[in-house]
Amino acid sequence: MKKHNFSAGPCILPDEVMQQAARAVEELDGSGLSLIEISHRSAAFIDIMENACALALELLGLTGKGYKALFLQGGASSQFIATAYNLLENKGAYLNTGTWSTKAIKEAKILGEVVEVASSADANFNYIPKEYSVPTDADYLHITTNNTIFGTQIKNIPDTDTVLVSDSSSDIFSRELDFSKFGILYAGAQKNMGPAGTTLVVVREDVLGKVTHSIPSMLDYAIHSSKGSMFNTPPVFAVYTSMLTLEWLKNLGGIKAIEVKNNAKADLMYGEIDRNSLFKGFAAQEDRSTMNATFTLEEAKLKERFYSMCADALINGINGHRSVGGYRASMYNALPIASVQTLVDVMKELERTA
Amino acid sequence: MKKHNFSAGPCILPDEVMQQAARAVEELDGSGLSLIEISHRSAAFIDIMENACALALELLGLTGKGYKALFLQGGASSQFIATAYNLLENKGAYLNTGTWSTKAIKEAKILGEVVEVASSADANFNYIPKEYSVPTDADYLHITTNNTIFGTQIKNIPDTDTVLVSDSSSDIFSRELDFSKFGILYAGAQKNMGPAGTTLVVVREDVLGKVTHSIPSMLDYAIHSSKGSMFNTPPVFAVYTSMLTLEWLKNLGGIKAIEVKNNAKADLMYGEIDRNSLFKGFAAQEDRSTMNATFTLEEAKLKERFYSMCADALINGINGHRSVGGYRASMYNALPIASVQTLVDVMKELERTA
Repeated sequence: MKKHNFSAGPCILPDEVMQQAARAVEELDGSGLSLIEISHRSAAFIDIMENACALALELLGLTGKGYKALFLQGGASSQFIATAYNLLENKGAYLNTGTWSTKAIKEAKILGEVVEVASSADANFNYIPKEYSVPTDADYLHITTNNTIFGTQIKNIPDTDTVLVSDSSSDIFSRELDFSKFGILYAGAQKNMGPAGTTLVVVREDVLGKVTHSIPSMLDYAIHSSKGSMFNTPPVFAVYTSMLTLEWLKNLGGIKAIEVKNNAKADLMYGEIDRNSLFKGFAAQEDRSTMNATFTLEEAKLKERFYSMCADALINGINGHRSVGGYRASMYNALPIASVQTLVDVMKELERTA
Repeated sequence: MKKHNFSAGPCILPDEVMQQAARAVEELDGSGLSLIEISHRSAAFIDIMENACALALELLGLTGKGYKALFLQGGASSQFIATAYNLLENKGAYLNTGTWSTKAIKEAKILGEVVEVASSADANFNYIPKEYSVPTDADYLHITTNNTIFGTQIKNIPDTDTVLVSDSSSDIFSRELDFSKFGILYAGAQKNMGPAGTTLVVVREDVLGKVTHSIPSMLDYAIHSSKGSMFNTPPVFAVYTSMLTLEWLKNLGGIKAIEVKNNAKADLMYGEIDRNSLFKGFAAQEDRSTMNATFTLEEAKLKERFYSMCADALINGINGHRSVGGYRASMYNALPIASVQTLVDVMKELERTA
């Protein structure tokens, strides 16, 4: 029996993607070789990489607009220091909306001056600060579009005169935005894009090359861009499987189509959290993430029963992060609404029998 | 028909490993979930990571000797800057034996003073320099045990009073050495260890924590060590498949057993290169790599025929690197001697019919 996988990441991917990835590990397209034993310099893999990069730009509506898509290693965590290395000359401005923003700030401080333009740390990051000003001499403004741990999401992407940089690990490809607002957009693959092990960096090329310090090659986006993400051996399996996932999304109708599904799942989930007297949402209503719904069960004595009801219903991965407690239902692109309905049914049943 | 895969990396892995990895992408051990959709914080994956790390230390004979094994991202290329970040306080000493050493030197120079103790650049890196002295105030000596591109290998690991650091990407787990000589040993997985996408760093913990500068978290081995390689989301598939490959090696009898096989393959290959009047070895005889045999075909008019004979025999991946030209037969742990015999037979047949 297939589980209902609400894991926060690595997470559920489309079933057909997982099946096709498994077949490619056995043998890639009748080549007589497994996907994982082919050279990254082979024509087959160069096609895969180019296709993955082209699909990423196409889905974001950025084809032909001066952007490059790079598939790198090291996770979003490596981009915290990489974005600072590539952009920080005078000062970096950061909007602090949670654990990952806080980490990004810490890394950038190794290289230069950092200004925290606003923070919601005062309320355990349960909301998105909206009133703040960015210093006119900032090299960039760094935001986190979705906060996986706290379940908040920036609904209105800020307009800024400086370069806008975003960690969009947990909501990339989930909703339509004007992606041309971003100078750099990065995301670990392991939510909406593919398996853990690769990181997409989308960079508008004109933002690069403006710092005076040396950049370690592996953190230098201009180098990766000039080498088509092949400066060193890329993570072949993760890039291939990301390509399959992006193809799946394109065939489904792209971001516009998936956003409708994601909104329906979020409406169902939050509707129940608000309706059900036993549960309480964590994030401020207007800032609720469509990807990660965080909530608590108020009566401690019901927790064990809820746990076992979820287990019986094959619901997996809804324990909340230790920074928030309670529960977190992650509803990434590949999660079917039927899984959300199953969780909602369990919540209703718990209330009925409480 | 299965090809004879001489690719320099990513490269052939044991057939049973590729099959088991494919099955895990379908479903991991009857869990109802694919390997690539499980949380890295799940008990199942924590077991996988701990097992992979323990196997790496066990196979190297380093269990209980103050070492940690880390499975990171970013390839050996990221360790060029990481090793310097972790160790370079006064100066770094480097033995330059090829493309990868040269790149390691370039990265370290971003952070501090570098001394090249010797180089074989004068002869296109076709030998290993043996006479050199290391400055007494060097923080470490960095070597590359095997040079994939040029087909040379350090046979006698130098004794040094400073910390010995090695890029062993292309010969780790292939031959017995006194691994306790190394302070840090690192290797991209994609030769003898697994698929592209993870990098093993074996570090003796007492060499860390001695620099006064800040280290970006993702390049800080002490942080990765304290978090059991889970500071950020690890590359789940690559770690799992590396674990399978290390298990395969252990079941085969470990490094001692594979070294016998590797020597037999190398003897067969170099024996033919030396015997056959049409071919010429590139690397100095005493420094020949057991992993990568580099050689040329002297008569240009025979190249096309050799190419088509190799293709007919399903021989894959023997084109030499552009820095050397000619051919390169990579004979990593998982390559059967039957594949080497097939190549040798083609070389003999070319000579017979030339």
